[in-house]
Amino acid sequence: MEEQIDSVGKAFVDHYYHLFDTDRPALSSLYQPTSMLTFEGQKIQGVDDITSKLNQLPFDRCRHVISTIDSQPASVTGGIVVFVSGSIQLPGENHPLQFSQMFHLSPTLQGNLFVLNDIFRLNY
Amino acid sequence: MEEQIDSVGKAFVDHYYHLFDTDRPALSSLYQPTSMLTFEGQKIQGVDDITSKLNQLPFDRCRHVISTIDSQPASVTGGIVVFVSGSIQLPGENHPLQFSQMFHLSPTLQGNLFVLNDIFRLNY
Repeated sequence: MEEQIDSVGKAFVDHYYHLFDTDRPALSSLYQPTSMLTFEGQKIQGVDDITSKLNQLPFDRCRHVISTIDSQPASVTGGIVVFVSGSIQLPGENHPLQFSQMFHLSPTLQGNLFVLNDIFRLNY
Repeated sequence: MEEQIDSVGKAFVDHYYHLFDTDRPALSSLYQPTSMLTFEGQKIQGVDDITSKLNQLPFDRCRHVISTIDSQPASVTGGIVVFVSGSIQLPGENHPLQFSQMFHLSPTLQGNLFVLNDIFRLNY
Protein backbone atom coordinates (compact mmCIF):
# COMPACT_ATOMS: atom_id res chain seq x y z
CA MET A 1 0.00 0.00 0.00
CA GLU A 2 2.70 2.46 1.01
CA GLU A 3 4.79 1.64 -2.05
CA GLN A 4 1.70 2.00 -4.21
CA ILE A 5 1.06 5.50 -2.87
CA ASP A 6 4.66 6.44 -3.62
CA SER A 7 4.36 5.08 -7.16
CA VAL A 8 1.12 6.91 -7.82
CA GLY A 9 2.56 10.14 -6.44
CA LYS A 10 5.72 9.84 -8.51
CA ALA A 11 3.78 8.96 -11.68
CA PHE A 12 1.56 11.99 -11.17
CA VAL A 13 4.51 14.31 -10.57
CA ASP A 14 6.38 13.01 -13.62
CA HIS A 15 3.25 13.46 -15.74
CA TYR A 16 2.37 16.90 -14.37
CA TYR A 17 5.76 18.53 -14.89
CA HIS A 18 6.31 16.81 -18.22
CA LEU A 19 3.05 18.37 -19.45
CA PHE A 20 3.98 21.69 -17.86
CA ASP A 21 7.32 21.78 -19.69
CA THR A 22 6.21 20.39 -23.06
CA ASP A 23 2.43 20.96 -23.52
CA ARG A 24 1.19 23.33 -20.84
CA PRO A 25 -2.42 23.69 -22.16
CA ALA A 26 -2.85 19.94 -21.64
CA LEU A 27 -2.61 20.46 -17.86
CA SER A 28 -6.32 21.30 -18.05
CA SER A 29 -6.99 17.56 -18.18
CA LEU A 30 -5.80 17.25 -14.57
CA TYR A 31 -8.17 19.81 -13.04
CA GLN A 32 -11.94 19.90 -12.48
CA PRO A 33 -14.47 22.69 -11.79
CA THR A 34 -13.96 22.23 -8.03
CA SER A 35 -10.15 22.47 -8.27
CA MET A 36 -8.28 25.23 -6.49
CA LEU A 37 -4.85 26.68 -7.20
CA THR A 38 -3.01 29.09 -4.93
CA PHE A 39 -0.09 30.45 -6.94
CA GLU A 40 2.27 32.66 -4.96
CA GLY A 41 -0.65 33.63 -2.73
CA GLN A 42 -3.15 34.25 -5.56
CA LYS A 43 -6.25 32.06 -5.26
CA ILE A 44 -7.79 30.70 -8.45
CA GLN A 45 -10.69 28.27 -8.73
CA GLY A 46 -11.92 26.03 -11.52
CA VAL A 47 -10.30 24.33 -14.46
CA ASP A 48 -10.76 27.28 -16.85
CA ASP A 49 -9.25 29.98 -14.64
CA ILE A 50 -6.46 27.68 -13.46
CA THR A 51 -5.56 26.73 -17.03
CA SER A 52 -5.60 30.42 -18.05
CA LYS A 53 -3.29 31.31 -15.16
CA LEU A 54 -0.80 28.56 -15.96
CA ASN A 55 -0.78 29.41 -19.65
CA GLN A 56 -0.34 33.14 -19.02
CA LEU A 57 2.70 32.86 -16.77
CA PRO A 58 5.35 35.29 -18.05
CA PHE A 59 7.56 32.65 -19.63
CA ASP A 60 6.93 30.36 -22.58
CA ARG A 61 9.36 27.59 -21.89
CA CYS A 62 10.71 26.22 -18.65
CA ARG A 63 12.22 23.07 -17.25
CA HIS A 64 11.32 21.61 -13.87
CA VAL A 65 13.87 19.52 -12.01
CA ILE A 66 12.35 17.59 -9.12
CA SER A 67 14.37 17.13 -5.92
CA THR A 68 11.93 15.41 -3.54
CA ILE A 69 8.48 13.80 -3.75
CA ASP A 70 6.61 12.84 -0.57
CA SER A 71 3.21 11.14 -0.88
CA GLN A 72 0.65 10.03 1.69
CA PRO A 73 -2.87 8.61 1.53
CA ALA A 74 -5.27 11.45 2.34
CA SER A 75 -8.57 9.66 2.84
CA VAL A 76 -10.19 6.26 3.00
CA THR A 77 -11.73 6.98 -0.41
CA GLY A 78 -8.47 7.06 -2.35
CA GLY A 79 -7.23 10.62 -2.09
CA ILE A 80 -3.49 11.32 -1.98
CA VAL A 81 -1.43 14.30 -0.89
CA VAL A 82 1.83 14.88 -2.75
CA PHE A 83 4.50 17.35 -1.66
CA VAL A 84 7.16 18.33 -4.19
CA SER A 85 10.35 20.35 -4.00
CA GLY A 86 12.53 21.24 -6.92
CA SER A 87 13.72 23.98 -9.22
CA ILE A 88 12.53 25.70 -12.38
CA GLN A 89 14.98 26.71 -15.06
CA LEU A 90 13.69 29.65 -17.09
CA PRO A 91 15.11 30.59 -20.49
CA GLY A 92 17.80 33.26 -20.26
CA GLU A 93 18.17 32.94 -16.49
CA ASN A 94 21.49 31.80 -15.07
CA HIS A 95 20.12 30.40 -11.85
CA PRO A 96 17.13 28.08 -11.42
CA LEU A 97 14.33 29.16 -9.05
CA GLN A 98 13.66 26.88 -6.09
CA PHE A 99 10.02 25.98 -5.43
CA SER A 100 7.76 23.86 -3.25
CA GLN A 101 4.34 22.66 -4.33
CA MET A 102 1.64 20.50 -2.84
CA PHE A 103 -1.15 18.63 -4.56
CA HIS A 104 -4.22 16.99 -3.07
CA LEU A 105 -5.38 14.41 -5.61
CA SER A 106 -8.95 13.23 -5.29
CA PRO A 107 -10.72 10.42 -7.16
CA THR A 108 -13.38 11.28 -9.76
CA LEU A 109 -16.59 9.25 -9.93
CA GLN A 110 -14.85 7.29 -12.69
CA GLY A 111 -11.97 6.50 -10.34
CA ASN A 112 -9.32 8.68 -11.94
CA LEU A 113 -7.36 11.14 -9.82
CA PHE A 114 -7.73 14.88 -10.38
CA VAL A 115 -6.06 17.84 -8.68
CA LEU A 116 -8.45 19.16 -6.04
CA ASN A 117 -5.88 21.33 -4.23
CA ASP A 118 -2.71 22.83 -5.70
CA ILE A 119 -0.52 25.27 -3.78
CA PHE A 120 2.68 26.65 -5.31
CA ARG A 121 5.36 28.79 -3.69
CA LEU A 122 8.78 29.89 -4.79
CA ASN A 123 11.39 29.48 -2.01
CA TYR A 124 13.29 32.69 -1.41
CA MET B 1 -16.11 31.06 3.37
CA GLU B 2 -12.74 31.84 1.84
CA GLU B 3 -11.86 34.25 4.65
CA GLN B 4 -12.98 31.66 7.18
CA ILE B 5 -10.64 29.06 5.70
CA ASP B 6 -7.77 31.54 5.88
CA SER B 7 -8.59 32.32 9.52
CA VAL B 8 -8.79 28.67 10.47
CA GLY B 9 -5.52 27.92 8.68
CA LYS B 10 -3.73 30.83 10.33
CA ALA B 11 -5.11 29.97 13.79
CA PHE B 12 -3.94 26.39 13.37
CA VAL B 13 -0.47 27.47 12.21
CA ASP B 14 -0.07 29.94 15.07
CA HIS B 15 -1.15 27.28 17.57
CA TYR B 16 0.98 24.50 16.07
CA TYR B 17 4.28 26.39 16.02
CA HIS B 18 3.61 28.05 19.36
CA LEU B 19 3.26 24.58 20.90
CA PHE B 20 6.29 23.35 18.96
CA ASP B 21 8.45 26.17 20.31
CA THR B 22 7.15 26.27 23.90
CA ASP B 23 5.59 22.89 24.81
CA ARG B 24 6.48 20.34 22.17
CA PRO B 25 4.96 17.27 23.93
CA ALA B 26 1.56 19.01 23.75
CA LEU B 27 1.62 18.64 19.95
CA SER B 28 0.28 15.12 20.57
CA SER B 29 -3.16 16.70 21.07
CA LEU B 30 -3.24 17.61 17.36
CA TYR B 31 -2.67 14.09 15.98
CA GLN B 32 -4.75 10.91 15.93
CA PRO B 33 -3.95 7.20 15.39
CA THR B 34 -4.55 7.62 11.64
CA SER B 35 -2.20 10.63 11.34
CA MET B 36 0.86 10.48 9.12
CA LEU B 37 4.05 12.52 9.27
CA THR B 38 6.73 12.50 6.61
CA PHE B 39 9.74 14.28 8.12
CA GLU B 40 12.59 14.83 5.68
CA GLY B 41 11.46 11.72 3.79
CA GLN B 42 10.98 9.52 6.87
CA LYS B 43 7.42 8.19 7.17
CA ILE B 44 5.88 7.92 10.61
CA GLN B 45 2.32 6.92 11.46
CA GLY B 46 0.16 7.39 14.53
CA VAL B 47 0.08 9.88 17.34
CA ASP B 48 2.57 8.00 19.56
CA ASP B 49 5.32 7.57 16.97
CA ILE B 50 4.81 11.07 15.60
CA THR B 51 5.02 12.58 19.08
CA SER B 52 8.16 10.55 19.81
CA LYS B 53 9.79 11.74 16.60
CA LEU B 54 9.01 15.39 17.25
CA ASN B 55 10.23 15.19 20.85
CA GLN B 56 13.44 13.40 19.89
CA LEU B 57 14.61 15.90 17.28
CA PRO B 58 18.24 16.78 18.02
CA PHE B 59 17.51 20.21 19.46
CA ASP B 60 15.67 21.20 22.62
CA ARG B 61 14.66 24.71 21.80
CA CYS B 62 13.85 26.35 18.52
CA ARG B 63 11.91 29.28 17.17
CA HIS B 64 9.76 29.13 14.05
CA VAL B 65 9.22 32.30 12.03
CA ILE B 66 6.39 31.94 9.50
CA SER B 67 6.71 33.63 6.10
CA THR B 68 3.61 32.43 4.21
CA ILE B 69 0.40 30.53 4.99
CA ASP B 70 -1.85 29.30 2.15
CA SER B 71 -5.08 27.51 3.04
CA GLN B 72 -7.75 25.85 0.92
CA PRO B 73 -10.86 23.77 1.66
CA ALA B 74 -9.96 20.14 0.98
CA SER B 75 -13.34 18.40 1.04
CA VAL B 76 -17.05 18.98 1.36
CA THR B 77 -16.86 17.54 4.87
CA GLY B 78 -14.74 20.32 6.35
CA GLY B 79 -11.14 19.29 5.67
CA ILE B 80 -8.51 21.97 5.02
CA VAL B 81 -5.05 21.90 3.47
CA VAL B 82 -2.53 24.37 4.82
CA PHE B 83 0.83 25.09 3.20
CA VAL B 84 3.45 26.90 5.28
CA SER B 85 6.86 28.37 4.51
CA GLY B 86 9.20 29.85 7.05
CA SER B 87 12.41 29.43 8.96
CA ILE B 88 13.59 27.70 12.12
CA GLN B 89 16.14 29.33 14.37
CA LEU B 90 18.10 26.75 16.33
CA PRO B 91 20.13 27.61 19.44
CA GLY B 92 23.78 28.29 18.66
CA GLU B 93 23.21 28.51 14.90
CA ASN B 94 23.94 31.78 13.14
CA HIS B 95 21.59 31.22 10.24
CA PRO B 96 17.98 30.06 10.39
CA LEU B 97 16.97 26.99 8.35
CA GLN B 98 14.33 27.52 5.68
CA PHE B 99 11.49 25.00 5.58
CA SER B 100 8.20 24.20 3.87
CA GLN B 101 5.46 22.14 5.49
CA MET B 102 1.98 21.05 4.53
CA PHE B 103 -0.87 19.93 6.74
CA HIS B 104 -4.12 18.24 5.80
CA LEU B 105 -6.53 18.93 8.64
CA SER B 106 -9.52 16.63 8.90
CA PRO B 107 -12.55 16.90 11.18
CA THR B 108 -12.99 14.42 14.03
CA LEU B 109 -16.40 12.92 14.77
CA GLN B 110 -16.70 15.65 17.40
CA GLY B 111 -16.07 18.30 14.76
CA ASN B 112 -12.59 19.37 15.82
CA LEU B 113 -9.77 19.43 13.29
CA PHE B 114 -6.82 17.07 13.64
CA VAL B 115 -3.69 16.64 11.54
CA LEU B 116 -4.29 13.74 9.15
CA ASN B 117 -1.32 14.49 6.85
CA ASP B 118 1.87 16.35 7.78
CA ILE B 119 4.83 16.64 5.41
CA PHE B 120 7.95 18.58 6.39
CA ARG B 121 10.97 19.47 4.28
CA LEU B 122 13.93 21.73 4.83
CA ASN B 123 14.65 23.90 1.75
CA TYR B 124 18.25 23.61 0.67
